[in-house]
Amino acid sequence: MAKLRGNAIVGQSGGPTAVINQSLVGVIETAAGMPEIETLLGARHGVKGILGENFVDLFKESKETLEAVANTPSSALGSVRKKPTRDECLQMFEVMKKHNVRYFFYIGGNDSAETAFITNQMAKESNYELRCFHVPKTIDNDLRVTDHCPGFGSAAKFVAQAFIGDNLDNRSLPGIKINIIMGRHAGFLTAASALAKDRSDDGPHLIYLPERPITREQFRDEVAEVYNRLGRCIIAVSEGIIDAAAEGHKTFTEVVMSEAAEIEKDTHGNIQLSGSGALGDWLANYLKRELGSTLRVRADTFGYLQRSFPGVVSSVDAAEARMCGRKAVEFATQGDVDGSVAMIRTESGAYGLDYICTALANVAKETRSLPDEFIAATGNYVTPAFIDYARPLVGTLPTVGYFEGMK
Amino acid sequence: MAKLRGNAIVGQSGGPTAVINQSLVGVIETAAGMPEIETLLGARHGVKGILGENFVDLFKESKETLEAVANTPSSALGSVRKKPTRDECLQMFEVMKKHNVRYFFYIGGNDSAETAFITNQMAKESNYELRCFHVPKTIDNDLRVTDHCPGFGSAAKFVAQAFIGDNLDNRSLPGIKINIIMGRHAGFLTAASALAKDRSDDGPHLIYLPERPITREQFRDEVAEVYNRLGRCIIAVSEGIIDAAAEGHKTFTEVVMSEAAEIEKDTHGNIQLSGSGALGDWLANYLKRELGSTLRVRADTFGYLQRSFPGVVSSVDAAEARMCGRKAVEFATQGDVDGSVAMIRTESGAYGLDYICTALANVAKETRSLPDEFIAATGNYVTPAFIDYARPLVGTLPTVGYFEGMK
Repeated sequence: MAKLRGNAIVGQSGGPTAVINQSLVGVIETAAGMPEIETLLGARHGVKGILGENFVDLFKESKETLEAVANTPSSALGSVRKKPTRDECLQMFEVMKKHNVRYFFYIGGNDSAETAFITNQMAKESNYELRCFHVPKTIDNDLRVTDHCPGFGSAAKFVAQAFIGDNLDNRSLPGIKINIIMGRHAGFLTAASALAKDRSDDGPHLIYLPERPITREQFRDEVAEVYNRLGRCIIAVSEGIIDAAAEGHKTFTEVVMSEAAEIEKDTHGNIQLSGSGALGDWLANYLKRELGSTLRVRADTFGYLQRSFPGVVSSVDAAEARMCGRKAVEFATQGDVDGSVAMIRTESGAYGLDYICTALANVAKETRSLPDEFIAATGNYVTPAFIDYARPLVGTLPTVGYFEGMK
Repeated sequence: MAKLRGNAIVGQSGGPTAVINQSLVGVIETAAGMPEIETLLGARHGVKGILGENFVDLFKESKETLEAVANTPSSALGSVRKKPTRDECLQMFEVMKKHNVRYFFYIGGNDSAETAFITNQMAKESNYELRCFHVPKTIDNDLRVTDHCPGFGSAAKFVAQAFIGDNLDNRSLPGIKINIIMGRHAGFLTAASALAKDRSDDGPHLIYLPERPITREQFRDEVAEVYNRLGRCIIAVSEGIIDAAAEGHKTFTEVVMSEAAEIEKDTHGNIQLSGSGALGDWLANYLKRELGSTLRVRADTFGYLQRSFPGVVSSVDAAEARMCGRKAVEFATQGDVDGSVAMIRTESGAYGLDYICTALANVAKETRSLPDEFIAATGNYVTPAFIDYARPLVGTLPTVGYFEGMK
């Protein structure tokens, strides 16, 4: 079979990560060595750039530039939250035909896999040969098939380092501290806070995941128990925790916001109670109200810092993200194959990976949650199995020194 | 004159920093070499440890432990928010006499300098020879006399790195982004966000400082101007910004919270509107309400991450913090002298410092604000003079790579 020759498009989609540019550069450097790929067009802001034919010629970039971009967080081509409609996919497909595009690489989460999947199906229906490849990326770590997702390790490292520092801060000035962590539907990143724990009384002492609904009273009682025992309590809370007392699997934020909206209606909209800090602030105020207003309770919401903080990058994550980009190009140029790159952990003792190609349909649409075996029976912590899973992904964490006389 | 011989106490006070343990270890290693100091007692949780005679023998710690502690953020001895009353100072003084303490080193902000000052005066009144030394520490950078304060450089580095990442994030997914930064009365740390700016359209685009009161309408209009021009806007806001429309120099937070408290009264306390994220959330919601609800506006509050994040430390700050601890012991053992260590920038071209001893009264109580020459005439940015001042303090910042084709 003659090799498929033509141009290629690469794009980035969804929330940025610290290593999404590693994957992009992995695509560029590998494509540059493939005679099948004549030009590599970088689509600015993902599908928006394809629809608007807003491209950058990526083969014109120097090695030095590529290396500098690879080591820069966030999406160098620009990103987009847009999930194209079927009509827009058709338009994109027309643009691709017009530019003789034969390879399409899309770096992102499950929505990006779906975009690649739909575009791929349209090409098949039109008998237009187009290899479509999805390169996994998400700090939420919620894609199916792959053992973990590029971007997660670095975000997990940020979260773990933040908790190492916060635990020391809290030892120094004891109190109750709530930290709200990203991951609306999957608790992986919140769970990664447990990597900060070294000494038996280190925080986080409690971890609340979207996979385990709780009531506010349960939250209060569990915090009080730790506080009464240790004189302090550090709590990791996913932004997506579910209120077990509410009907219809609602998040705490939804419940609290709808209570607030009722009040807002009464006050003619003079106040706004939503916002990124609202969940943490609500929980902190709730604890003060229930456990005593003189308690030192404070909440921080890590926000965007988690996903594109320069200088806090897992070297393992960076290398794997790069390899995922490379493998996408290698797979795509090997024959009539489309798919998503997945990392499979090798069975042997030491940490290692195989990179495989899985069908786009396996990764598109649905996501996965933190598996049961990673969640403690109490529902408010992780298991040692999770630590074994996550530790190799974050690379080296800072070490902490204590006085011998205070141990 | 015979040298004063006896025991010494060292303590840490106030909010932790990334390098406060460098100062502590500077005190320990220098004191260990001084025949005048027989034992060095570490007071656990500052003045609380002195009052409760809760001490650690710091000469028993190994060199390896000292180095590990020096490189660990937060206060290794534990900290305290307590400012002792005059009666408690008297009690502390009695404890010191009982333990034959002749040297007292207190690492902290202006309150700590005042504690050292009062203790020193009591000793003088009782004709008890006691050398009292304050070692400067604060991420707020608001102590008088010294050019800058240990702890500020590392916090400034964290803030600058956060803005480098957030600027890239915002380039990738454009919108309006507000970041709330610590420093209730002094804008130094908020101003440090400007160190993130490299390219002419980089954020932060606006910087709001406690030194320049603004109205909410002014804030809205200035943000709208940037957003209309660039299609995005990143804003650094001090937690202590003052509402120019309110009487009595009230902070935005106070004004917004008192408006909310009125509403809370009406709703029988069923909601709580205060919290660490409240200012950012209020500003974000206000902009959405005023400029259009479909705008992508988001606020993050950096919170405690700014002050004790391990792995993001200015090497310059770390070395200077260490030196401040060393100098305190050197000054104290030189003769009948008490004071606070201050760093004075040398006049020559390259960055360099002289370490001097200034009177405790010069540092106690009052603090300083960001000087006028560091604030732009517009009131919503910093001057090049501030950048010249702050850049040497943060050490190296991560470099950012861009595609040539997108410049």
